[in-house]
Amino acid sequence: MSVSPLHEAIPHNKARYEDYEHWQFLRLTDKFHEAPRGSVVIHGKVIYGYPSIGRILRLETGLKHQFHAPFWVEEKVDGYNVRLARVGDQVLAFSRGGFICPFTTDRAPDLAELRILEEHPDLVLCAEVAGPGQPYISGHPPYIREDVQLFVFDMMRMGQAGYLPQPEKQALVRQYALPAVQCYGRHTPDQVSELRALMARLAEEGREGVVMKEDSDRDHRTKLVTSYSCVDDIRGTVDHLRDLPAEYFVGRVLRLALFLEEQGEAQLDDVRRQLGSAFLDGLYRAIEQSKQEQRVYHTHRCLFRDPENAKRLLKHMKRTTGHAHVAQRRLEKEGDYYVLEFDKLHAAMTGLLGHVLGGGLVFD
Amino acid sequence: MSVSPLHEAIPHNKARYEDYEHWQFLRLTDKFHEAPRGSVVIHGKVIYGYPSIGRILRLETGLKHQFHAPFWVEEKVDGYNVRLARVGDQVLAFSRGGFICPFTTDRAPDLAELRILEEHPDLVLCAEVAGPGQPYISGHPPYIREDVQLFVFDMMRMGQAGYLPQPEKQALVRQYALPAVQCYGRHTPDQVSELRALMARLAEEGREGVVMKEDSDRDHRTKLVTSYSCVDDIRGTVDHLRDLPAEYFVGRVLRLALFLEEQGEAQLDDVRRQLGSAFLDGLYRAIEQSKQEQRVYHTHRCLFRDPENAKRLLKHMKRTTGHAHVAQRRLEKEGDYYVLEFDKLHAAMTGLLGHVLGGGLVFD
Repeated sequence: MSVSPLHEAIPHNKARYEDYEHWQFLRLTDKFHEAPRGSVVIHGKVIYGYPSIGRILRLETGLKHQFHAPFWVEEKVDGYNVRLARVGDQVLAFSRGGFICPFTTDRAPDLAELRILEEHPDLVLCAEVAGPGQPYISGHPPYIREDVQLFVFDMMRMGQAGYLPQPEKQALVRQYALPAVQCYGRHTPDQVSELRALMARLAEEGREGVVMKEDSDRDHRTKLVTSYSCVDDIRGTVDHLRDLPAEYFVGRVLRLALFLEEQGEAQLDDVRRQLGSAFLDGLYRAIEQSKQEQRVYHTHRCLFRDPENAKRLLKHMKRTTGHAHVAQRRLEKEGDYYVLEFDKLHAAMTGLLGHVLGGGLVFD
Repeated sequence: MSVSPLHEAIPHNKARYEDYEHWQFLRLTDKFHEAPRGSVVIHGKVIYGYPSIGRILRLETGLKHQFHAPFWVEEKVDGYNVRLARVGDQVLAFSRGGFICPFTTDRAPDLAELRILEEHPDLVLCAEVAGPGQPYISGHPPYIREDVQLFVFDMMRMGQAGYLPQPEKQALVRQYALPAVQCYGRHTPDQVSELRALMARLAEEGREGVVMKEDSDRDHRTKLVTSYSCVDDIRGTVDHLRDLPAEYFVGRVLRLALFLEEQGEAQLDDVRRQLGSAFLDGLYRAIEQSKQEQRVYHTHRCLFRDPENAKRLLKHMKRTTGHAHVAQRRLEKEGDYYVLEFDKLHAAMTGLLGHVLGGGLVFD
């Protein structure tokens, strides 16, 4: 294995070696100089990480403040971030943190036409994978009713930070008929009312929001989410609120208020009830689960082409979320796929609800 | 000044000396052996702190689990905790943390018949002070419409941890016509339906909840709050949510769900809307204030008998909440009192809203 500048992160405790099948690769566990967390060095190539994008909470001032040139507006899809790349004669999917995702790697041939990576072996596809059949998060867009779908939103080249320009990316998306996020066109910072109307429509349609990418050399990016996304995130996770940082919930309530206030939302009374219902109905569900089964958990159901990848996923989940917190229910062939069902235990919520439903004291 | 076992806390960094007028006294900044945080040694006497009381989140199992004997049920009033004691020829009011509270000390003669402390100079009155005219917290019970009121809920003796038995306390309350918390009688752990009905009535009346005190030598205590209290706390503080730990809000939502679920709340749709409205309406208020005045703050208005105590309060507030965050608006005589008006700046919320309303980025 050749040595790259990223190997210098090892003595700083910002990189470590990982094994996956016959691969050994280096993963940045932290940002190191210009390379984001999740950058990897594998088979002598560097695949840069996908850095987090700053969020604006107000449209009008945010556009004015963030953009010095027109910008592309694309849908932000509610799923998990992967990078697909050809390594040797395999296509591997890397998670945000730089792990190889056994699920996405397994299903990649179903999710996109991978011929592009044969013909352009130095390309990296940056994409969101979303849907009820994914193993990581509990929410998904309402318009994806089963399994998962993939949406390309950027392309990189191996060994290079930064992304292909929008026209080049779009040409490749069209040429290979790749599934991609919707593009809502190129806008200028003064087109506030158009974008306000777009955000209202996306909220109506149950979409998470937009990522905006400046059409300039600096390629500055920012994101903005809809009121729908704020409420839906709370609804989807409140049943395990003790397993997440409290800031997760408070931050979404704040985003929601700032979004609605700027939109001059007419249906405010509806949103009040939706927010209250997102919090309370999810907690009732958790209380009911705790009373019935003495634990709070979520069952995931994922399809695999190769059952070995299902086992690799469980191993990966056990490592990242705690061995005792992931339990296989079944792994069986059904039609063309192996169906993996597993429970993810919400340990903190299980402990807390068990304690207080049993009459225990809490101090705060 | 005589030396007490509490002085041994000094080398452990759990006690420090404080000055107030001509007094120098020792204050426990942390629990030390059996003495709670806020215990003080002044004028050769030890006044024990008022320890925090564990909370149950469920009535039926909580009563069964916590109490081995009948218990007294008293109203928990939404205010701040003080201990009133005679020191030399003065009555001083100590805050939960063991500071001398200049406001309560000033107003003590208005709030209770202090003759009890002349005739029983070793008594300490433990009380809640509540109302819109108090300097510390922003919420108050809806049934106190102006200024403040005091409610005695326990009595201690100087130099002794633990409280006077309920009959002895109640006899003294009656004898001196002291304002005291309402007592809802002596109950047994199996009287679940009576207490459920009581909690529903207290929620209706806008009361915070109850403290329950076992009628036994161990005098075990626990508290339980109403749905009203959970929503009202959020409504009263969400305008400065970044200045409080996020757990403050998440904890109250969880309490609310557990309370309602146990009560089998019929009016659930109302509570959903109230919860959503508590979050959103308070945040709109903060956004409006930030847009209009570039800061988020709360104005307190307190009455004083002696203007020197008003100055002492401001000095105390500046020390405990940050010098730049407390600003006097006016201090003027009106009728029998000096009116102090001051603003408490919510610095974190001011900073965050200024940043995001101006179009700044946030990373999370």
